[in-house]
Amino acid sequence: MDQIYMKEAIVEAKKAYAMDEVPIGAVIVKYNTIIARAHNLREHEQLATAHAEILAINEACKQLQSWRLEGCTLYVTLEPCPMCSGASILSRVDRVVFGASDQKGGSIVSSFSMFDQQGYNHYPTYTSGVLADECASLLKDYFKEKRNKK
Amino acid sequence: MDQIYMKEAIVEAKKAYAMDEVPIGAVIVKYNTIIARAHNLREHEQLATAHAEILAINEACKQLQSWRLEGCTLYVTLEPCPMCSGASILSRVDRVVFGASDQKGGSIVSSFSMFDQQGYNHYPTYTSGVLADECASLLKDYFKEKRNKK
Repeated sequence: MDQIYMKEAIVEAKKAYAMDEVPIGAVIVKYNTIIARAHNLREHEQLATAHAEILAINEACKQLQSWRLEGCTLYVTLEPCPMCSGASILSRVDRVVFGASDQKGGSIVSSFSMFDQQGYNHYPTYTSGVLADECASLLKDYFKEKRNKK
Repeated sequence: MDQIYMKEAIVEAKKAYAMDEVPIGAVIVKYNTIIARAHNLREHEQLATAHAEILAINEACKQLQSWRLEGCTLYVTLEPCPMCSGASILSRVDRVVFGASDQKGGSIVSSFSMFDQQGYNHYPTYTSGVLADECASLLKDYFKEKRNKK
């Protein structure tokens, strides 16, 4: 099932790519249904917080009319940054599933492990590396294309 | 000057208090002008990400029509959580000034130091403890009142 939903997150990432945004996509699933989908919109919205995960969490909160996303899984093509890992803790999603790791800013398994920090009210479980190559390829292709355009 | 702007963040926190939200407020200042102000709206908006800092950063991005908040200082009554510290890095604010420390979730000096993590594109400077007692009293009063209501 994880691969099925990650494919949907990749569909979102491709929408970002087509808009010349860094291609990262996310979906949120509850009871085997996608309740929110979003992609990175930082440049189009000129909004520092417009990462795929934040937009998906906001949409899921609206759908459920609740800030508590218990029972939900967040799928995202790239390992979340600190802002988005923090948002997954605050929104109390049950689980975070990501594709490619982010050696630089990833805050679940790479640069540090936010879910290992003490003192929060909630800790999502997580699964890494789902369709990682496909997720990473999109990012590689995007940045290669950007460099070639210069 | 820090105290003057922190007082404005406290004004925001009091608005949250009056709405029965955890009383945390924030303002963003550029060139000695407040360009954004916000307070915690998690319960009213039923939005996990509706922390004062995120709402203030979003408003500042709108005002400046840019996701880059260079030259800006974020004033907030409570030490930021990981989501909000992460957002301050991503939005490239020059500086974060906070009032009370948050031993549990604070991610600048308390539970851990996000600004000491390696690998980000930007590191805000920070100042802690500005009008800390006043900021902390608001929170203490709020939670005391909540307990007494039960």
